Amino acid sequence: MKICILPGDGIGPEITAEAVRVLEALDLKFEMEEALLGGAAVDATADPYPEATRKLAREADAVLLGAVGGPKWDTLPREQRPERGLLGIRKDLGLFANLRPAVLYPELANASSLKPEVVAGLDILIVRELTGDIYFGQPRGIEVRDGERFGFNTMHYTESEIRRIGRVAFEAARKRNKRLCSVDKMNVLETTQLWRDVMIELAPEYPDVELSHMLVDNAAMQLVRAPKQFDVMVTGNMFGDILSDEASMLTGSIGMLPSASLDANNKGLYEPSHGSAPDIAGQGIANPLATILSVAMMLRYTFGQENAALRVENAVKKVLAQGLRTGDIFEPGTTKVGTKQMGDAVLAAL
Amino acid sequence: MKICILPGDGIGPEITAEAVRVLEALDLKFEMEEALLGGAAVDATADPYPEATRKLAREADAVLLGAVGGPKWDTLPREQRPERGLLGIRKDLGLFANLRPAVLYPELANASSLKPEVVAGLDILIVRELTGDIYFGQPRGIEVRDGERFGFNTMHYTESEIRRIGRVAFEAARKRNKRLCSVDKMNVLETTQLWRDVMIELAPEYPDVELSHMLVDNAAMQLVRAPKQFDVMVTGNMFGDILSDEASMLTGSIGMLPSASLDANNKGLYEPSHGSAPDIAGQGIANPLATILSVAMMLRYTFGQENAALRVENAVKKVLAQGLRTGDIFEPGTTKVGTKQMGDAVLAAL
Ligand SMILES: CC(C)[C@H](C(=O)O)[C@@H](O)C(=O)O
Ligand SMILES: CC(C)[C@H](C(=O)O)[C@@H](O)C(=O)O
Repeated sequence: MKICILPGDGIGPEITAEAVRVLEALDLKFEMEEALLGGAAVDATADPYPEATRKLAREADAVLLGAVGGPKWDTLPREQRPERGLLGIRKDLGLFANLRPAVLYPELANASSLKPEVVAGLDILIVRELTGDIYFGQPRGIEVRDGERFGFNTMHYTESEIRRIGRVAFEAARKRNKRLCSVDKMNVLETTQLWRDVMIELAPEYPDVELSHMLVDNAAMQLVRAPKQFDVMVTGNMFGDILSDEASMLTGSIGMLPSASLDANNKGLYEPSHGSAPDIAGQGIANPLATILSVAMMLRYTFGQENAALRVENAVKKVLAQGLRTGDIFEPGTTKVGTKQMGDAVLAAL
Repeated sequence: MKICILPGDGIGPEITAEAVRVLEALDLKFEMEEALLGGAAVDATADPYPEATRKLAREADAVLLGAVGGPKWDTLPREQRPERGLLGIRKDLGLFANLRPAVLYPELANASSLKPEVVAGLDILIVRELTGDIYFGQPRGIEVRDGERFGFNTMHYTESEIRRIGRVAFEAARKRNKRLCSVDKMNVLETTQLWRDVMIELAPEYPDVELSHMLVDNAAMQLVRAPKQFDVMVTGNMFGDILSDEASMLTGSIGMLPSASLDANNKGLYEPSHGSAPDIAGQGIANPLATILSVAMMLRYTFGQENAALRVENAVKKVLAQGLRTGDIFEPGTTKVGTKQMGDAVLAAL
């Protein structure tokens, strides 16, 4: 059981360190090896997804990623930006299924900008296609045409790409509340008309799951108006980028939200849903819980260790119940702790 | 001063009727003529934007639209769906600048699903490019390639298209709180890298406006987390579709929000931000205020009648202060009225 550890940039190394301690404490004999991705890789090798990382990531059963990016690298040419590393590893490993839970922990209900009654008990799973769509579509670029600059990108999906992510979403819904909402913009985009058609074709294979469809603009509204109407949502790469971030923020505690990006054989890359937070990097105050919960997803999806996954998740719930909070989720009456103290508390609770 | 009235579908005819009464009451000698758009046009002529409507809309100085669409027409071929009519008239009239205010009326603060302190005093203007982007990009379609269906669309912008909407947004910010946030996905999409480049190039012409940039996924989050950080937002057609709907819903009272879609000479199409609500059509209970406020935008932007615009807006504020509410914004302690009674009250308050 090999895990490739990619601490990345900003707070990445700090939060990953705590997650690694959790992995070690489980006594499951993982083999772990570290490599560079993102800005850290650019600094060392001028390549955000260097060959050495590629080799290690390909050989591993799972990848744990901190976060990538930061203003330091924003002015570099496109191929050298940290995000290229992230897009590169997703595509290279065929990680087409991005699972992003948006779950509100009762202890943190206050952190939400939404009214308690609107979000109490929120538990949505967003399934985002991650290796297709306008993210990777060709042709693309900026050219001069008729004497002026012209920027262009291509959105596309094949029916097999849609079917494959559709199945992941139907299966996920089956294990939850059996409701799947597929999000598209079929009234404007042919690509997403095909998306809807394929979802409808899949439905008879999952008679126990109730399939519905929603236009992306309406979905963005409904997430604000009444997010608890959703169980599992499935959508393409671009819409999924927007809606999964919107859904995360409904909880007000994005520092708590893990994610998994899976290939066809349950190999996965696991990372917190939040970014690299360069503004607080190196201060030892970042919240490691989303990364630790990403470890739980890894245990569940890649290693099939449901018990170990629950152990980690319960340990996190316990430290929340103990009143321990990093700065991002702190409120009066709770105890503010740093990254390492939070990791210590999770280890103790394990 | 010619106005083309397009009642459209669903609640469209009911709410447009009230807005027309307001226009008549202003005694500004408007010439008004009605035509068909959307499903109503499909039913009558098999074309969602028939020639007669095109002629009238082209000749008019402004267009007032109710709403289009409904499940009745969802299974028709693409070219016959009501949305085609809306996209057709936007493109035909060159209405590239969509202005969508998201304003929270103090009397309706409770309607929001967000905490009062997060949204009290909310006043955002979203400027959405409306005639370009992936909405109109060629090539597009669904084809069979390598033995399977393949859906594709093209996103593109020229620098002049971006510059033109950029100027509208900078000018709008200049008249408000002088802050403009341009939203893109420049870390992935070249089209929006060009978008950001052109916005940066425009900035020196507007030294009094503070320009910032935000990635679309972050914008979707920030609208939920702290929407009052925004003054004017500008973005492309696709992202604008999603973010303007999300922003509207922050108010909880989308039945109150007007919109304007302008060409280069302030000719405009004005319509409520909400849809055709087929579920309550014909019952006389729809909220006409967004359509009436769209008339105020028409008076301001197309006819330069600032005083008349304010008169209408103040009349709407007055009926809210009087406690009159249609079902969508009703709460205990207020008086529930129907579409026509609400129109009567606005007329009385004028
Ligand atoms: C960093 C960026 C390329 C990435 C994306 O757009 O996919 C990020 O926003 C995410 O959602 O993981
Ligand atoms: C009906 C649809 C084509 C339209 C759009 O996507 O532009 C609508 O959602 C809007 O925002 O006016």
